[in-house]
Amino acid sequence: MNQSFDIAVVGATGTVGETIVQILEERNFPVADLHLLASIESAGSSVPFRGKNVRVREVDVFDFSKVKVVFFAAGPAVTSSYAAKASAAGCTVIDLSGVLPASQAPQVVPEANAQVLAGLPKPVQVSSPSPSATALAVALAPLRGLLDFQRVTVTACLAVSAQGREAVSELARQTTALLNLHPLESNFFDRQMAFNLLAQVGTPDAQGHVPLEKRLVTQLREILNLPTLKVSVTCIQAPVFFGDSFSVSVQMAGPVDLDVVNAALEAADGLELVDAGDYPTAVGDAVGQDVVYVGRVRHAVDDTSELNLWITSDNVRKGAALNAVQLAELLIKDLP
Amino acid sequence: MNQSFDIAVVGATGTVGETIVQILEERNFPVADLHLLASIESAGSSVPFRGKNVRVREVDVFDFSKVKVVFFAAGPAVTSSYAAKASAAGCTVIDLSGVLPASQAPQVVPEANAQVLAGLPKPVQVSSPSPSATALAVALAPLRGLLDFQRVTVTACLAVSAQGREAVSELARQTTALLNLHPLESNFFDRQMAFNLLAQVGTPDAQGHVPLEKRLVTQLREILNLPTLKVSVTCIQAPVFFGDSFSVSVQMAGPVDLDVVNAALEAADGLELVDAGDYPTAVGDAVGQDVVYVGRVRHAVDDTSELNLWITSDNVRKGAALNAVQLAELLIKDLP
Ligand SMILES: NC(=O)c1ccc[n+]([C@@H]2O[C@H](COP(=O)([O-])OP(=O)(O)OC[C@H]3O[C@@H](n4cnc5c(N)ncnc54)[C@H](OP(=O)(O)O)[C@@H]3O)[C@@H](O)[C@H]2O)c1
Ligand SMILES: NC(=O)c1ccc[n+]([C@@H]2O[C@H](COP(=O)([O-])OP(=O)(O)OC[C@H]3O[C@@H](n4cnc5c(N)ncnc54)[C@H](OP(=O)(O)O)[C@@H]3O)[C@@H](O)[C@H]2O)c1
Repeated sequence: MNQSFDIAVVGATGTVGETIVQILEERNFPVADLHLLASIESAGSSVPFRGKNVRVREVDVFDFSKVKVVFFAAGPAVTSSYAAKASAAGCTVIDLSGVLPASQAPQVVPEANAQVLAGLPKPVQVSSPSPSATALAVALAPLRGLLDFQRVTVTACLAVSAQGREAVSELARQTTALLNLHPLESNFFDRQMAFNLLAQVGTPDAQGHVPLEKRLVTQLREILNLPTLKVSVTCIQAPVFFGDSFSVSVQMAGPVDLDVVNAALEAADGLELVDAGDYPTAVGDAVGQDVVYVGRVRHAVDDTSELNLWITSDNVRKGAALNAVQLAELLIKDLP
Repeated sequence: MNQSFDIAVVGATGTVGETIVQILEERNFPVADLHLLASIESAGSSVPFRGKNVRVREVDVFDFSKVKVVFFAAGPAVTSSYAAKASAAGCTVIDLSGVLPASQAPQVVPEANAQVLAGLPKPVQVSSPSPSATALAVALAPLRGLLDFQRVTVTACLAVSAQGREAVSELARQTTALLNLHPLESNFFDRQMAFNLLAQVGTPDAQGHVPLEKRLVTQLREILNLPTLKVSVTCIQAPVFFGDSFSVSVQMAGPVDLDVVNAALEAADGLELVDAGDYPTAVGDAVGQDVVYVGRVRHAVDDTSELNLWITSDNVRKGAALNAVQLAELLIKDLP
């Protein structure tokens, strides 16, 4: 394909936005003009792309009719304000904020439900799911046709970078303070994050679920196309800077043949299966990589109908920026 | 009771042994003579007890007929070498190493299965379970009579102190190195432990389970007296110095009434229920405390037959030393 496209990245100065720009370059995405957008605060700064510094501009005054594809990586409020405008201007919209309803912008992970893209009205609006849903979908999709999923139980151990730069700084600051026997300050987190695990990421509803957990249930059912799947989720905040880890149990209707599971995972796109005996970690394997790592593939003790897995993934890269760029790669094939 | 007893602590210079000595003092345990035992390496050192320094002696040359109760907190090899000798000398044996078979020394958590003690042949041999089994038993026992347990799924996030002092030093050293951009060394752990999660604690068998996980399944079934309970366990090593955290899902045969659950947990011994909205952490709540903390009591999303809990416990104190002393408190009531 020789055609190239004008692209906008909204939130280009952020953790995810910067990674999108970097991946567009790495993967040789056919970019004609690249428009980098953010709030008025960082308008005028610049971000490197293909050896040049690209000036960041204010999203507020941007004319979306200049571009064909827009990545929204600036939070739910910004998507709510500008996605409709971009779509009305004819842009393909790829949203990373999770705010658009499934009916308008379905959640898509290319390795799991790329077929959804074909049926969407033009101009397409699509959502890149949460990093947790993306990682789990990549790991579970290859097994969906082989096994009869009854229930998925997940403990998601999330990196602080999912909460942005302030969270990363606070973990570093608290850790230094503790090691130097200085008093600990908690500003971003509501208590000690260093050398500790927080059992709740966000504010729970009356039923005790936080939005992140409910969203993961909804997104996983949608992406795997298993609308009645039972999904039980606990999201915990780990003292880890980058990379999410997931302890996953899947109950199946009958005995699971681990050879079949291993063969399916081995053959699957977007994931790396780690041999029995060894196991992947967030920091040692997943961070900076384009694949989700799956290890500790085993039954439960005395129960062959349950499958246990350990999954690690780079929350910013594979969990967000790369998935969004993969969606764009598929969608531009259908652009005039 | 005015009677007091001669006591021996084997492994008195260790993490758990020192805490046993401290708790014997704190709880005013009726100690007559206290004998502190360890290997030849620390024989001659001393440990404080009731304002005096008690000299540590070599277990090898100890005459067990001098004492009525022996705590074994020096690892499986030491228990294997000396427990039979102590028992033959008429001592009540309380083992913390997990090496004695259930038929010889049942696993007991006073809050869950104290009744087992009454039926044991004299001199009694009893096992204080692993910290994970102890914490989970304290939290689940109050619900056992009320709900029909089908399956327990646990992700246990374990503190490095469970692995002894070298593990604690290595986490501190690695963390300092990373924050100062120095090269990282892994001697105790097989890879980076700082700011990371390790998915495997120990060496897996051909089925992929590590001994710690299998032991937890066996012990939990035994303590809860639910021999066919399905238990699915993943033990992960967290970059936390002290205090274990557990993400737990329990499937029940029918709908769970959360008011009943909360009332039962509120009334239970040995645990503190944390209100909805708030949640306990290992470092902020459990460490140094005599109770197991339980929070995030909730159903699964769209599934009232599943109960989710978050549990934290001090692995050294409530998970080991205190449970052992509680066992001793019950057992001395029956000593001549
Ligand atoms: N971090 C992750 O792991 C992750 C993963 C998946 C999805 N996401 C989602 O991706 C989005 C960005 O997350 P992030 O972690 O990259 O956040 P971030 O590092 O805080 O970056 C936020 C970006 O949004 C821009 N922005 C904020 N308010 C704006 C406004 N009113 N108008 C225009 N631009 C505005 C910021 O620009 P300024 O420099 O001008 O402030 C910055 O470029 C969020 O929706 C988040 O939920 C994040
Ligand atoms: N740490 C925990 O969270 C935890 C919890 C529950 C149960 N446990 C169990 O409790 C036991 C002790 O664990 P720990 O963490 O306290 O270990 P630790 O800190 O390494 O202490 C080990 C103790 O055992 C003694 N010891 C070692 N080899 C000996 C030998 N050959 N003869 C006599 N004494 C010997 C050591 O004495 P020296 O000073 O002479 O070496 C020391 O007092 C283990 O069985 C462990 O599995 C530990």
